[in-house]
This record gives sequence, C-alpha cells and structure tokens, in this order.
Amino acid sequence: MRTFRLVIACPDRVGIVAKVSNFLASHNGWITEASHHSDNLSGWFFMRHEIRADSLPFGIEAFREAFAPIAEEFSMDWRITDTEQKKRVVLMASRESHCLADLLHRWHSDELDCEIACVISNHDDLRSMVEWHGIPYYHVPVNPQNKEPAFAEVSRLVKQHEAEVVVLARYMQILPPELCSEYAHKVINIHHSFLPSFVGAKPYHQASMRGVKLIGATCHYVTEELDAGPIIEQDVVRVSHSDSIEDMVRFGRDVEKMVLARGLRYHLEDRVLVHGNKTVVF
Amino acid sequence: MRTFRLVIACPDRVGIVAKVSNFLASHNGWITEASHHSDNLSGWFFMRHEIRADSLPFGIEAFREAFAPIAEEFSMDWRITDTEQKKRVVLMASRESHCLADLLHRWHSDELDCEIACVISNHDDLRSMVEWHGIPYYHVPVNPQNKEPAFAEVSRLVKQHEAEVVVLARYMQILPPELCSEYAHKVINIHHSFLPSFVGAKPYHQASMRGVKLIGATCHYVTEELDAGPIIEQDVVRVSHSDSIEDMVRFGRDVEKMVLARGLRYHLEDRVLVHGNKTVVF
Amino acid sequence: MRTFRLVIACPDRVGIVAKVSNFLASHNGWITEASHHSDNLSGWFFMRHEIRADSLPFGIEAFREAFAPIAEEFSMDWRITDTEQKKRVVLMASRESHCLADLLHRWHSDELDCEIACVISNHDDLRSMVEWHGIPYYHVPVNPQNKEPAFAEVSRLVKQHEAEVVVLARYMQILPPELCSEYAHKVINIHHSFLPSFVGAKPYHQASMRGVKLIGATCHYVTEELDAGPIIEQDVVRVSHSDSIEDMVRFGRDVEKMVLARGLRYHLEDRVLVHGNKTVVF
Amino acid sequence: MRTFRLVIACPDRVGIVAKVSNFLASHNGWITEASHHSDNLSGWFFMRHEIRADSLPFGIEAFREAFAPIAEEFSMDWRITDTEQKKRVVLMASRESHCLADLLHRWHSDELDCEIACVISNHDDLRSMVEWHGIPYYHVPVNPQNKEPAFAEVSRLVKQHEAEVVVLARYMQILPPELCSEYAHKVINIHHSFLPSFVGAKPYHQASMRGVKLIGATCHYVTEELDAGPIIEQDVVRVSHSDSIEDMVRFGRDVEKMVLARGLRYHLEDRVLVHGNKTVVF
Repeated sequence: MRTFRLVIACPDRVGIVAKVSNFLASHNGWITEASHHSDNLSGWFFMRHEIRADSLPFGIEAFREAFAPIAEEFSMDWRITDTEQKKRVVLMASRESHCLADLLHRWHSDELDCEIACVISNHDDLRSMVEWHGIPYYHVPVNPQNKEPAFAEVSRLVKQHEAEVVVLARYMQILPPELCSEYAHKVINIHHSFLPSFVGAKPYHQASMRGVKLIGATCHYVTEELDAGPIIEQDVVRVSHSDSIEDMVRFGRDVEKMVLARGLRYHLEDRVLVHGNKTVVF
Repeated sequence: MRTFRLVIACPDRVGIVAKVSNFLASHNGWITEASHHSDNLSGWFFMRHEIRADSLPFGIEAFREAFAPIAEEFSMDWRITDTEQKKRVVLMASRESHCLADLLHRWHSDELDCEIACVISNHDDLRSMVEWHGIPYYHVPVNPQNKEPAFAEVSRLVKQHEAEVVVLARYMQILPPELCSEYAHKVINIHHSFLPSFVGAKPYHQASMRGVKLIGATCHYVTEELDAGPIIEQDVVRVSHSDSIEDMVRFGRDVEKMVLARGLRYHLEDRVLVHGNKTVVF
Repeated sequence: MRTFRLVIACPDRVGIVAKVSNFLASHNGWITEASHHSDNLSGWFFMRHEIRADSLPFGIEAFREAFAPIAEEFSMDWRITDTEQKKRVVLMASRESHCLADLLHRWHSDELDCEIACVISNHDDLRSMVEWHGIPYYHVPVNPQNKEPAFAEVSRLVKQHEAEVVVLARYMQILPPELCSEYAHKVINIHHSFLPSFVGAKPYHQASMRGVKLIGATCHYVTEELDAGPIIEQDVVRVSHSDSIEDMVRFGRDVEKMVLARGLRYHLEDRVLVHGNKTVVF
Repeated sequence: MRTFRLVIACPDRVGIVAKVSNFLASHNGWITEASHHSDNLSGWFFMRHEIRADSLPFGIEAFREAFAPIAEEFSMDWRITDTEQKKRVVLMASRESHCLADLLHRWHSDELDCEIACVISNHDDLRSMVEWHGIPYYHVPVNPQNKEPAFAEVSRLVKQHEAEVVVLARYMQILPPELCSEYAHKVINIHHSFLPSFVGAKPYHQASMRGVKLIGATCHYVTEELDAGPIIEQDVVRVSHSDSIEDMVRFGRDVEKMVLARGLRYHLEDRVLVHGNKTVVF
C-alpha cells in the first residue's frame, strides 16, 4: 500500500498535533500509523505520520505546498516522503561478507524497501556475490598512499549513482571528514562493539581483554569523530570465559548483521529523527 | 506532575485524531504523551493521551461532560483518569512470597502508583511481612470443602476495601467464575509459564519434561477459562539441560516478579486496552 | 586444529570420569574441551571431550578399539568423531529462502564445518542461488497425489549423497514416518513457533490470535509425531500490538535462521546428546 | 545435600583431570557437577567439582591433607569448601533500598546460601527494614571530613563480624585502597552501567546524553582502580528515546538487583575464579 510519510521536528508547544491532524483530516487523510515524542530536556517535539496516499486528493508536491504554511508557523524541520520513490542506497564493504550478504538477501527477497545502486569495495573479493544479484560492483583500492584520489573516486561514484544513503557494511576504512559532513545523517555504519565501549580497532580483542560478559554491535550515523555519531540501534549477545576471541567474532557477526539491517530499515522507513547527537526512532 | 489520562477505543475512521486533538488544543491541553494504534484486522482504533492537569481550565468531571459528545459521535469506549486518584489494589497471595515481596517493596519505595488496600491469603505465613508495611492482612483459608464461603468472604473483603484491581501474586487458587466476570479486566494473574504453553498446574515440571530451552512467565487478565485471558506481558529466561526443576523454579521466580510488576504498572498507568482476547499496551 | 570428539552417555556411577580421563592421560591426550552432566531424574551421565588428534599416538580406528573395553564396562552409548571427516548434509527447502540462504552463506564463509551434498526442494525457485554456490539442486515436486514416489525419490537422493544429516530449512512438507524413523536424530527441523505453543500450520497467525508478547522459533529433531521431537535450540523476539502478522513473519525469519544455524552447528560439532525426548547440549 | 567444592587453577598440562578424578574415584567420591576450562591465551587450566560429602570417607581437613601432594605437583591455586560452612557476608548500603531489599528477601526465603552478619550503611534510612529480618544494622556516617575514622570503623565491623565477603549493594562511597587490597576478590560491587561504558558518577545521565539504546549493570570485584575490577556478571535492558533519565533509573534498578544477586550467588557457590583481571564463572 502506497503511503506518504510526514516527519516533523519542532520546538514543543500546545496545538501542534491538533494543527497537523486537522490538516490531514480536512483532506480526508487516512492515517495508518502515528507517533509522537516530547523531549522534556530539549523542549523539542517529534512526530511521524504514515498516510494512505490514495486517501488524499493530491500528490506529494501539492502536499508540500499545502503544508508549508503550517511548517512555517511552528518552525518545523520536516519532510514528506513517498513510499513509491524508493531510496537509492550505495553499500560499501571490505573483505568480510556477512553484513553485505545479509543486506543483499533482504533486498533480494523484498524485505528492504530500497534500490541498491551499487556496491563499492576496497577489495575485489565479493564481486561475484554482488554481481549475481545484478548489482554493479566497483573495486576502489585504498592504501595509505592513495587515500585522497581513492575517496575522490568513492565520492564520484556515490554522486553518479545518486545515492541518498551510504551504508558501511563493515567497510573498515575511515571516511574523510568532507564526505562525513557532505552526507551528514546519510552515512550509516555498523561498529562491532556496544558503543561507547571499545571505540576504534579490534573491539572484540578489547572486549576479551576487559572480560565483559556481553558483547554487542552499534548502528550509527557517521560523523567526523570516530564511532561517536548518533546511535540508531544496538544489541548484545552473551559470552563467557569459554568463548575465545574467534568465538566472539563469530557471535558478533550475527549481532552486527541484525543490528545493521534493523538500523537501515528504520532509516529507509523514515523512522529516524536526529536531534543533536541523539536519535528518536519511531 | 498531575496528569489526566484519556483512553479511547472506537471503530476506525478518518478524523478521530483531529477531533480529539482539536478538543485538547482548544482547551489549551498540554499533551505529555500520545499513542495511537489502528488495528487492521478488527478495524478498531485505539488512543491514549496524557495531559497536564494544570494546563486545562477544568477538572475531570467537567472534562467528562465536555468530551461526551465527541465520544458519542465516534461510538467510543473511553475513560479519563486522574493521577491524583490512586487506584486501590487488593493483593492475593499464598505461601510463596517473591511476587508479593517484590510488589510491596516497589510500592514502599514509591515506584508503584497505587494504594494497597489489603492483602488476602489462604495461608497465614506472610502476615508479618505485610504488616511491617502497615497493610492489613486477611487470612481466608480455602479448602475443597469451604470454597463457596471462602470466596464469598474474599468477595466481601474486595468490596469492603473498594478495590479497583485485584492482583493474584502467585495465589495458586482458581477464582470462581462469578468473581472473574464481576471483575472482568480487573483481576491480574501471573502464570509461571510462557502461555499458551503449559497451562494449569506445575508448569515448570511440564517445561522440564518437554525439554524446552527457555522458560517464561505470563501476566494476564483472569477470565473464566483457566490461563486463557488477555495477555498483558510476558518474558522468558534461558535454561539448559544442567538446570533441575528446582533451578527452573528459582529462575522462574525472577521472571514472574518482573513480568507481574511490569504488567501491573501498565494497568495502573491506564496503558492497557483490552479488545476481544487481546491487549493493546501503550 | 584437528580434534577427536568423544561423546558418551551411560548410567551414572562413581568412577566414569576417572576411567575416561585416565585412558586419555595414559595416551597423552590433550583435552581442549570437557563437559559433563549428571541427570538426577534419569540417573544417566553424559560426557563430551575434545582431544587434540596430534597429541594421541593413534588414529580414530585404533582409538575405537582401545576404548571399547571401557565402553563395555560402563554400558556406554558412545561415539568418537574426527573433525577432519566433515559431516555430509542434505538441505531441504521450499520457496522461502531465508534459512537456506543463511546456511549457504555460513558454509560458504567457512563458518559451518560440513559438506553440503545437495539441496532438495519441492519448488524450483531457489535453484540459481544454490547453484551459484556450486551445490547440486534437485527439484522433487510434492503434491497430494504423488507423495509416495516423491518421498521415495527424496530418500534415494539422501542415500545417494550419503547424507549423515538432513536439514529441513523451512521445507513445509511433512516427512513420511519411515524416513523419520530411518533417520532418527538425524533430521533437523526449524519450526516457526516457540514449541510446544502453536504446533502445526500457520503458527504466526495462531500467535497473533492469542495475543502473545513474544514469538519464537524451535530447532528440533524430527520424529513421527509432528513438532514433538527433542528440542535442540529455541529463541524468541518481542512483538507488540502494533505488529501485524506480516511483521511477525518478518521478525520470525530472523529468529528462525539464527536458531536453525545454532542448532545445526551444535549437531555438527557433536554437542547434542539425545536422551528420551530431551537433549543435552554441551 | 551437603557437598564439598573443589576449585582449582593451575598451568595447563596433560594429566590434570586424570589425576584429580582418579583421586576422587579412589576415595569413592560422587561428583555431582564438574566444570573445566582451558584458557589458550594464558595457558592456564581451571576446574571445579562438586562432590557429595557423604560419599567420601573423610572430612574437609583430611581431604585437604590428602590432596595437598597433587596440588603441589601441579602448582595449583586451589581451595575446597564445605556447603555446611556458610559464608559470612556483610552488606553495605546507602539510601537506595532496591538491591539491599532484594538480597535480604532472597536470603530470608533460603535462596542465598550464606549468613548475613550485618548491614553497614552511611545513612540510617534502612534500619527498620534490616532489623525486621533480625540482622544487626550499623550506621557509620561518611563525609569528606571523617573518611579515615569512618572507614576504620567499617573495617573494624567487617573484622568483628568475621566477614568473608563484603557486598556493596549500591553503597555509593569509594572504599579506601587499603580495604580494597586487604579484601581482594572479596568485595563485590554493583555498578549501574554496562562497564566499561560510563565509569564513575551518574552513569544513567551519561547513558542518556550518549543516546544509547540499551542500558546495563555490572557486578564486579572491587579493586583500587574505580569500576575497573574483574567482571563477574552483566546484563542490559532496552531503552528508547521515550525513556527519561528517571525511567532509565527505574529500569536500571531491576537490572542492578538481578545482576548483583546472580553475581553474589556465583561467588557464594565458589563458581568464580579470578585470573588477572578476568573471571571464569562455572
């Protein structure tokens, strides 16, 4: 069923919900899902509606025009999206295949509502798996000497494929700050620890050294500061003294792919609103 | 902060949210929490609002009067409650103390927003613990011969204490059908299995015999059919071959008390809406 | 690292561990993992050792011969396996790909220590995915009229491929009793509910109707009685009133594939000992 | 059932299990539970046995003498304990009652196998609750000026009550280094975060600021470095944007008390072996 998704963040005050729901009702909009959140600490209000497109008398452009005065009145950060316009996603991977294979399978079986424009990797290992899915594969090697031209090429490919979202599916390279800020809140990473624990390299080794009893994974938006961006989703799995680092890596793969798939799904469904360094996930 | 809780269930159609939020906005109502649910299978709509009492120009009675025409128009099942009018709860227990002690401690440390009118038990074992909390304790023995007078006495005590909610905190006796139907959706039970598995007696023994790898507990409203009422909350805990039935009973106690405490809390905060044999828990 | 796995079940009595560990120590066997379990209810004892093959002065056949008198003395059900002799697995699937794709990916990335001899399906949909992995795919249609010849063909293929394990990766057909008993404790199924709840068809619909707050999946050995065999592994995921049956099916897929992969792994690593209708999982 | 618990850590080599199980078998020892762990990184071996006391021909002192040569031969760190000699525990608390009330209830209902020698608190709030259980309560106020005499008094009380374990049940004061080292691996703390995240004060505030999607609690041995000692047990609970810091504190209380109760139980049952800054928990 085709829906429009109206996503709003604005300073909290009386009457926002009434105004918005009046607007929708006056156009006969059939709301299939509605979520609200008032954040007491920041004084902001967040709202997301799914509305059946066929219940409205106009398309998305006319909606935008009609709604603009309300958005202005309440100083809203807002967007409306159409489920028929699938988001274009670029996936980036390195050698480890588990997150990439998981996302490709979900997309292939119509579980992920997006178009996968291409896969970019700094290695050539996963080409055959990607191409079996009918998706273009670009091998852009990265080494300490070629970082600038390599990421210029990455940036060019992302633009050429008109990506709205970039997913680092265990890409293992740090994106340059310009890319991070150009695609703010549009680059999704999976970090293989329960952040803020074990930032940086080899988190499972760090976890083993500290002797933790649970390990985890964190899906977050990439910012210039490493592993410090707004968190979208996290999960953990129990480990014990009997689990080696290799066992942790193996358990971790399952958590990583689940957490990344959930986080990406929330993003694709316009469920994630970023405010400061935190997210509201409806 | 004192709030009013407006809880609504009605057949779904366009304009409900607009009407209700308009009503609230027109009276300057400050909504601190709002939840909606459209059930596609049944065609019903469910809604719950928390509104700051001090933002409204009237009290709960005037609210009721003012809102009645809207409720009529949309054929609403609805209620409005005031957080200043604490619900009166009667707890029933038997010999096992873990659920009762847990609820008493939560109440004692101001975590459960209710008045505990009294405790009724078919044994006298827990009297001292209850009375230390300053709560009346009634010992109403039940045996196969005296069921009718015993439950008449239970019923009398529940009425005398003006209970709005009765909690069976591992009471281990089956309530007579009259009591179940008189207090429909007001008697909360904790069953020590993950329903619908292991209905009836000795669920941990049943679980051990079946060799399940997780055991659980279920908080539900009591209906005339045993362990078949609407489920409010459930949870599970992992067990293995190395856990004896006694271990399961011990693990189970922790799940039981957590699940019952959460379920009761949802009920006390007017978060549970019953529709047919299912619940919406906002 | 190549290991031998010595797996033992026998009536419990004093001296078993001493006898076995003496035997191992006298041959200089380096134990990398040891597990024991005494079942008080049945009076049986279970034990599993992993021993470095290169620490022993003999191969698996000589081990068998040397150990036989001890096994006799203690009336042991026992086996010893060699990690270099990978178990041969036949996967069976229908139209839904998630469990099959997950197992294939784990095998492809060396996470599952087995040989996948072939895939048998009653539909032809997943052929290309399977053949990309270099694995033979057999399409054996099943309908109410051809069950006998169809399962004769299945049985022939299983034998031809010398399968030691058959995995029903959402196969959706009921195996005939002869196959179940011929391959007792060798056919692994994933059932899409938290057994013993919701046996049989459409468990997510049953779960939705009952209004449960968690749904699950169960990996078990197939026996003649439907969904009643010994349970190897189970897990659950939280759902709420806002989740449709379609959402449950989607969440369920993730639980199913994780639970099946874990259960199969335990089996392949000789960690599962069946006793009566229950399992010990070391 | 009375058992002896034999707990061993030593450098790994062939023949340890054989030697120990031979010793036990030669004295007709009935092993009810056995656990082993080889740590590949450190090259150490860990072992724990529970043996029925009535199956052995001697008491614990004679056991110690008879076993000493084996312990010497393998350079074992070892201990043997008798379940009839209950460990003496001193509980320390501040104003928050949830962990203390939980432990007292478990002890009162025979779930915790120990003697609670006394409760020491820097406030007098919880006296009545403690004294209802028949346990002495000592109020030792602590302020920035009196730390030295206050902790001298704490130390005196711990000695006077012959405590083998000290449990900081949300004590909220930092123990002086001398006490930490004098009672190394004998002081158990519950920290209200998923360590190593959010060390120090106000971890729920820190968690809220970072926008994590799970919060947790950690039970660990106290060392001189704050919140950095060997971890015994951890757990987490899911939170969302809609949970205020107060909600997190409330959810956290439940995790804290469960994690502390499990950690203390493991310690009391001699299941925890500390090696470096990590634990083996059998």
